[in-house]
Amino acid sequence: MTPGTQTDPGTLMRAEIAEQPGVYGRILAGDAGAIRDAHREIARRSPRFVTIAARGSSDHAALYAKYLFETRAGLPVGLTSPSTYTVYDRHPVLADSLFLAVSQSGTSPDLVRSLAEARESGAFTVAVTNTPDSALALAAHRHIYIDAGEERSVAATKTYTAELLALYLLIVPEPSDLAPLPAAASAALTHIDEVAALAGRVGAARSVITTGRGFSYPSAREVALKLAETSYLPALAYSAADLMHGPLAMIDPDMPVIAIVAPGTAGRAMAPVCDSVRERGGAVLTVGYDQAADLALDRVGLDDAVLPMLEILPLQQMALTVALARGIDPDRPRGLHKVTRTN
Amino acid sequence: MTPGTQTDPGTLMRAEIAEQPGVYGRILAGDAGAIRDAHREIARRSPRFVTIAARGSSDHAALYAKYLFETRAGLPVGLTSPSTYTVYDRHPVLADSLFLAVSQSGTSPDLVRSLAEARESGAFTVAVTNTPDSALALAAHRHIYIDAGEERSVAATKTYTAELLALYLLIVPEPSDLAPLPAAASAALTHIDEVAALAGRVGAARSVITTGRGFSYPSAREVALKLAETSYLPALAYSAADLMHGPLAMIDPDMPVIAIVAPGTAGRAMAPVCDSVRERGGAVLTVGYDQAADLALDRVGLDDAVLPMLEILPLQQMALTVALARGIDPDRPRGLHKVTRTN
Repeated sequence: MTPGTQTDPGTLMRAEIAEQPGVYGRILAGDAGAIRDAHREIARRSPRFVTIAARGSSDHAALYAKYLFETRAGLPVGLTSPSTYTVYDRHPVLADSLFLAVSQSGTSPDLVRSLAEARESGAFTVAVTNTPDSALALAAHRHIYIDAGEERSVAATKTYTAELLALYLLIVPEPSDLAPLPAAASAALTHIDEVAALAGRVGAARSVITTGRGFSYPSAREVALKLAETSYLPALAYSAADLMHGPLAMIDPDMPVIAIVAPGTAGRAMAPVCDSVRERGGAVLTVGYDQAADLALDRVGLDDAVLPMLEILPLQQMALTVALARGIDPDRPRGLHKVTRTN
Repeated sequence: MTPGTQTDPGTLMRAEIAEQPGVYGRILAGDAGAIRDAHREIARRSPRFVTIAARGSSDHAALYAKYLFETRAGLPVGLTSPSTYTVYDRHPVLADSLFLAVSQSGTSPDLVRSLAEARESGAFTVAVTNTPDSALALAAHRHIYIDAGEERSVAATKTYTAELLALYLLIVPEPSDLAPLPAAASAALTHIDEVAALAGRVGAARSVITTGRGFSYPSAREVALKLAETSYLPALAYSAADLMHGPLAMIDPDMPVIAIVAPGTAGRAMAPVCDSVRERGGAVLTVGYDQAADLALDRVGLDDAVLPMLEILPLQQMALTVALARGIDPDRPRGLHKVTRTN
């Protein structure tokens, strides 16, 4: 498509949402070897801790990576604020650590500078991007290419999920069988009626709260950002535990809560939160893995830690639907550009 | 006051906001020695990294502590999710590290368990609480008592700022002269007309965005939580850089932006963000340290890192004013209890 070509609203976002099962298939078939090689190099260096830097949707992928490092690799993680490095010009000592930067474009000057300075202070540096010749990719010891194809919609969809999969392969010592993932992702994109019902409720709301716990908290953050940037809907994401510390008071019938309910312990921990919302007259819309969920996905035996790659898919469709219903073109949110340059 | 005694709406929150200059004075006059002793013990142990666990307002104090450790002590910090420990039952290796837990009540079971397990895995543990005989205080190697006096309002005010001051004294190697702080705090509480003007704008809004950068980002997060819990107003906090990555699209005249503009580099980095909001027809309400700010505070020579202890004060007053104007008693938000027990 040449610049200036007109497309119907949401054409790009819709197409890129639909590409995701194929992107998963491509990553699993192709570059996993290179990612596992980087995994082995990290294991060989045996870092004491990990620092991750990212912005926007990639910051939600970074949060996912934090949970993976902590629960699957036994490594403590700090999500860093590039401003620590670039605004105050002070630098923590990062010897014997891993510094990971996650960015679709790989061009944000503050990330490039943070990574370069982490490298100088002794960290082993890995960049995860969709742009192999980007400044960030070139500055790092290793580059992980997420191979999502060009992303043209301003709202990130396929690059977010490709980041999740690349990070899973990079971090988890013995990845589970991922062969069912592409088909499960295709199936997750077929819940048209449930997506329309969710979008109807959300689109009519004054504002919305999203919540999840553990691996599903990054999904809650990501759908909140999608709603904010494509539908201009004030969407507040809280971890289920933080929601109980104050924000619960906001709940009323005009502010539905989208709860992402993971299987197992993390999901069971959501039950009292959902009950508290309902006791306050609030509406809870659940996305989860048992038949009681408003939108029930089939996990087809996938590892708990893989499920964020499924549950975000119908939520992206929901954000697209809400935007179009509000007369907004989610491919061209007002005042946003694809690449944001912060210093 | 005995339980059940009726008070006018906001009586407790107003009184506790007003106590803060006195709390600062008490901390500086009294317990600073004990805090500095813990500082020396941390320095002697020379941890490689720091993990901080907290919830709610204390989590914003934890974010402040992260900036302090990174910029003033050269130590990388991870803000941890207690759910990593308690939901998944997996534990990162924390030998040679510092684990810090921040909590007004010191009773949250997930925090107590996280700290105990960090201690078992080799971390030096410090609890910062307002409750010396709490489970959290007793479980830690060292306890820092913030000495804020009993907090009766559900919305935390004086315990938040007392945590900030205790953390400053704990973390910064050579604390600046803090003698002017109590008087500066008293002065910060006198901007009655500007607070009323801000509250008028914010109270009429559909929702509000709060933003800041560096040390002022925790202030932005904290005022958003105060507005959510006391005024039921959807308030979205973004770091200034993250605001540019998507949420900017939401801006319209019904969604004012409260920008906390620190002096120096961090504040200058806010200028393009404020300009972008105004270009989109949004209203920017600034709290800062030069005369151009809508609410201008006098820093009286205090260190940049101390200013979060000032700038939050009129913003607490604003949240109180908005709540009362909406007919809400901020001392008793619907459905909240003073101590939240998450597992």
